[in-house]
Amino acid sequence: MKCFVTGGAGFIGSNLVDRLAAGGHRVTVYDNLSTGFHRFLECALATGKVSLFEGDILDLEKLTGAMDSHDIVFHLAANADVRFGILDPQRDLKQNTIGTSNVLEAMRRTGLRRIVFASTGAIYGESPVVPTPEDAPFPRQTSFYGASKLAGEALIEAYAEAYGIQGYIFRFVSILGERYHHGHVYDFYRQLQRQPTRLHVLGDGTQKKSYLYVGDCIEGILVALEKARDPVNIFNLGTDEYCDVNTSIRWICERLGIQPRLEYEGGRRGWVGDNPFIVLDCSRIRALGWRPRLTIKEGILRTLEYLISNPWVVDPPRRERKRPSPHGEPHETEG
Amino acid sequence: MKCFVTGGAGFIGSNLVDRLAAGGHRVTVYDNLSTGFHRFLECALATGKVSLFEGDILDLEKLTGAMDSHDIVFHLAANADVRFGILDPQRDLKQNTIGTSNVLEAMRRTGLRRIVFASTGAIYGESPVVPTPEDAPFPRQTSFYGASKLAGEALIEAYAEAYGIQGYIFRFVSILGERYHHGHVYDFYRQLQRQPTRLHVLGDGTQKKSYLYVGDCIEGILVALEKARDPVNIFNLGTDEYCDVNTSIRWICERLGIQPRLEYEGGRRGWVGDNPFIVLDCSRIRALGWRPRLTIKEGILRTLEYLISNPWVVDPPRRERKRPSPHGEPHETEG
Repeated sequence: MKCFVTGGAGFIGSNLVDRLAAGGHRVTVYDNLSTGFHRFLECALATGKVSLFEGDILDLEKLTGAMDSHDIVFHLAANADVRFGILDPQRDLKQNTIGTSNVLEAMRRTGLRRIVFASTGAIYGESPVVPTPEDAPFPRQTSFYGASKLAGEALIEAYAEAYGIQGYIFRFVSILGERYHHGHVYDFYRQLQRQPTRLHVLGDGTQKKSYLYVGDCIEGILVALEKARDPVNIFNLGTDEYCDVNTSIRWICERLGIQPRLEYEGGRRGWVGDNPFIVLDCSRIRALGWRPRLTIKEGILRTLEYLISNPWVVDPPRRERKRPSPHGEPHETEG
Repeated sequence: MKCFVTGGAGFIGSNLVDRLAAGGHRVTVYDNLSTGFHRFLECALATGKVSLFEGDILDLEKLTGAMDSHDIVFHLAANADVRFGILDPQRDLKQNTIGTSNVLEAMRRTGLRRIVFASTGAIYGESPVVPTPEDAPFPRQTSFYGASKLAGEALIEAYAEAYGIQGYIFRFVSILGERYHHGHVYDFYRQLQRQPTRLHVLGDGTQKKSYLYVGDCIEGILVALEKARDPVNIFNLGTDEYCDVNTSIRWICERLGIQPRLEYEGGRRGWVGDNPFIVLDCSRIRALGWRPRLTIKEGILRTLEYLISNPWVVDPPRRERKRPSPHGEPHETEG
């Protein structure tokens, strides 16, 4: 299989690229390196099966040229941080909605028929049904990020109806693991490294979220690709457990052997659009035989070990990191 | 109330402008006249309460300048024909999704807090629940038009959450009545005027759709504006009845006194993305005291009378009409 991975230099993307190469597939990474790291791809590039094409999904001509002669697109390139929408409401629209439209248009032009899309549990907004299944009641959006991903899903469905494209849409909980470089474990660890005696927390610490280890996430995608055959296949991807922010902090502090003073900011929600309770009903993907191998606690601790062993990710040289990274906790994590 | 109406020179828009002016409100129409007609606004402009600002919603600077100092936005400007998405999949994205994003951004910049949005029953795709309520199961999109309007709704919800904007979202069935200038009655009448002995029909004639008279549609909007007070208020707007295409053809031919041979093209669906059965559950808006005054048959016949009395709408001079107009029947009608 010849795979085209947008955002392949990012957190989930580069893990996927490694897995695809290990499975014998050839991979083209298409990434603008705005939030991804070249370093994440070093091993993959060394296999000789992976090549990197530096480009932006907003450049439709370049994207179309690079995509030609592949079998499947894994579309992971996105603005992945749900918290900053309020600073620039049109950024998610551009990078996620228009970007996805461009990926689909490039597929149509080059005759590609299969797309995997990284969507998010954020599109359920504050669902009245928890755990939330894929066919939950028509949701209301609470974030620009969720709105932009919902629009991306809708475009895939319309392309499937109009042109026979086959879509695999995955609504992720927060993903954790090796190469994780934003989100709550990252932000907490970074703060504690600088100041081990206190920790600033967005929200009141009671927000309940589900997390999934990146390796389990990728296995879920591959299982669905192998077994699901509908024109549009939609799967939640998460664990059946959840933990609250305070519990996550306790695990992190135990591992680091510290007891910081906790300073909470805001109320039930950590930021505008934050959903205080996210658990997805994943019985649809489980019915295909998939289940996560790591618990949330194991995922968080493995993430922490990775950050401890890779200080360059926590404090990358300026040229390797362009994006602001405030403290707090996103309820979705992708790039 | 000082009202800003995008698409105010269009079918629904110009009827709304007349109604607002009659209700004592001042109105600014913002329209690029690409599918609207200056002639639809002649009476409104003569009242002295209405002014026309010729501009495109894709021009954010011009839009922002024009919107300043109004109390409410009625956002009706859109590409309104669901059938042509397949010819240019990015057209609906631009005119509907990015257009709506611009309207919201202009509101944020000028401090406007209330928006009425013309959405569509097409966003339910082929719902498993008919009549379809507002909280139907998470829908799958079947058209680029539906996808673009879903994205518009999602953006309004995100703006409401982030900036306290109040949104009124109306999911219309097909709207009919005076100034209707595309859609199935228009197309059938136009064909029969040229060739009364035969009629070309997209689909097999059994598609069941609900239709609403434009005056009833506008009253529904005004009732909701007066009585609904949530940050985001979503209402289906339609009749509880439906009719199939063949019945509609019978009513039209009876009025015209002709018996054309019917030539059907395609199967159950008239075009890609056509939904063969659309009826919306309108109990939410009915609970506010609204009900339609015209039946579907009355709405169709009144539309036909309008077209008979206004031949310039059916065959407008070239400078008054820029859009192609094939035969067939859209399941949504707005502009």
